[in-house]
Amino acid sequence: MTTEVVATAPSVNWIYPLDIIGTLVFAISGVLTAIDKKFDLVGSLIIGFVTAVGGGTIRDLLIGRFPVGWLTNRHYFIVIFLGLLLAYLFRGTILKLRRSMFLFDTVGIAVFTVLGVQTTLAAGLNWEVCLIMGVISAVFGGILRDVLTNEVPLIFRREIYATACLAGGVVYLSLESLIGVRAISTITAILTVLVIRYVAVRRGWSLQINV
Amino acid sequence: MTTEVVATAPSVNWIYPLDIIGTLVFAISGVLTAIDKKFDLVGSLIIGFVTAVGGGTIRDLLIGRFPVGWLTNRHYFIVIFLGLLLAYLFRGTILKLRRSMFLFDTVGIAVFTVLGVQTTLAAGLNWEVCLIMGVISAVFGGILRDVLTNEVPLIFRREIYATACLAGGVVYLSLESLIGVRAISTITAILTVLVIRYVAVRRGWSLQINV
Amino acid sequence: MTTEVVATAPSVNWIYPLDIIGTLVFAISGVLTAIDKKFDLVGSLIIGFVTAVGGGTIRDLLIGRFPVGWLTNRHYFIVIFLGLLLAYLFRGTILKLRRSMFLFDTVGIAVFTVLGVQTTLAAGLNWEVCLIMGVISAVFGGILRDVLTNEVPLIFRREIYATACLAGGVVYLSLESLIGVRAISTITAILTVLVIRYVAVRRGWSLQINV
Repeated sequence: MTTEVVATAPSVNWIYPLDIIGTLVFAISGVLTAIDKKFDLVGSLIIGFVTAVGGGTIRDLLIGRFPVGWLTNRHYFIVIFLGLLLAYLFRGTILKLRRSMFLFDTVGIAVFTVLGVQTTLAAGLNWEVCLIMGVISAVFGGILRDVLTNEVPLIFRREIYATACLAGGVVYLSLESLIGVRAISTITAILTVLVIRYVAVRRGWSLQINV
Repeated sequence: MTTEVVATAPSVNWIYPLDIIGTLVFAISGVLTAIDKKFDLVGSLIIGFVTAVGGGTIRDLLIGRFPVGWLTNRHYFIVIFLGLLLAYLFRGTILKLRRSMFLFDTVGIAVFTVLGVQTTLAAGLNWEVCLIMGVISAVFGGILRDVLTNEVPLIFRREIYATACLAGGVVYLSLESLIGVRAISTITAILTVLVIRYVAVRRGWSLQINV
Repeated sequence: MTTEVVATAPSVNWIYPLDIIGTLVFAISGVLTAIDKKFDLVGSLIIGFVTAVGGGTIRDLLIGRFPVGWLTNRHYFIVIFLGLLLAYLFRGTILKLRRSMFLFDTVGIAVFTVLGVQTTLAAGLNWEVCLIMGVISAVFGGILRDVLTNEVPLIFRREIYATACLAGGVVYLSLESLIGVRAISTITAILTVLVIRYVAVRRGWSLQINV
């Protein structure tokens, strides 16, 4: 069964370039956090790695997909090394380009959400498990980054972050069952995440409930 | 083998209502911690989830039981959502009912200990592994909650907490090999945890060793 | 496949005594950290356990080797209990013997690196995955110890720590493919880690890059 899942893994279809962008952006975000914490080169590499592949790894562990995804594709290694290089070389520029980073990060979580849902569907699990795995794929890389650098995970307090992923997952699953054309489901789901997150940040939306 | 283990999983027998109570209490405890930390709604849900299913998840990962338990039973989702709702609606009342919460929490770790030992026995592993998995099932949900909220895990300093679970596990395994009636082993083990924890907290027992 | 991997697991060959030393030293290091944090006896045992087996556990989870290594060999339990005992009884002496502890710790990471590479090779994975798993086996026990005690992981800032493991892994894989005599590869790789780490600490080498 594992072999089948790997064979139909979503990493070989046209979402692939987006997956690469997501991985790159997450790696850069991890390395920048590590530099802030005065980690050395290898420490930064480890944090970059964990941030980039952490969400997908936890998903694969939970649904029992072995070896976990990034072990079977060399491209991840190359992209993460590239992220390390870019973060060290262009740190100042990247920090100035906060707006672009925000866009990239949101593309990252959008793509990882869809990939997470697809992978879990391919493993034959229920729709609510697919939703949860979509969110886990998108957000646990950042959570692990924050845990390893001894911070309270940002996303737990951030404007509509995991929630946008959840909405994207719902859109993906709905379209898949209603229309069933993967390209349409994927693009619409990614746009859903982008729009919700963009509007939420612009308007300062939050799910903070005062009790 | 995995299929067999799932088929004989303890979640379908009469311990089931207790499992539900344990899950609910742990979810509430996680959500309350998250509210204290000013997490938003989805952040609180994630912490509630991790607290409720974290211990069993780590156990299942270590012994190789896939997909991990909570993915295959929708009831966990419903119970954890219920916990989220109760924690937000009745936060004040729950905090006043500290004594009841203590009782529920202790029932939770007692039940999770027995479930952990049973699941590991069913997977055909050694008695000392069963003991360790009993303790892990009971305490790692709380440990993950504390790690994700950037606290030093409470249980490492708490009165006779993991130790009570260890004792409950020993009682369960002893009775299973001596008498072999699952109902007797289960009830006695749960009572053991409850009594040890109750007495320890009342008398301020501790395994703190000054060195 | 899992069965085969277990059957050819490196724990039964002559590297075995070194593995035991590594486990013992890591357990002691974990328990000492826990005592510093005023953890109770069971808390210290848990931290000792996690420090000693954490790296190998994460490696086994990632490559899908179940049940994870330490569950199938009672010797680990005995050695970790011994570590707990030694740490409590001889805490003062151990802290005075910092130089010996440093040596033991370095032997520990060297041995765990080689074991990690060997185990991953035996599971039929790529050389770069073997390298990463070597480093993970060596350093993630310490990372988990620091995360559970709410510290920023030391190794991310330490002189040439993970880097020395990486170098040891490269040496091991190179010699295996060039010469193919496991004893030679193992000893040379271990010496590589020892020498790099020793020289790095003596001369204050670092991979800290100011950006």
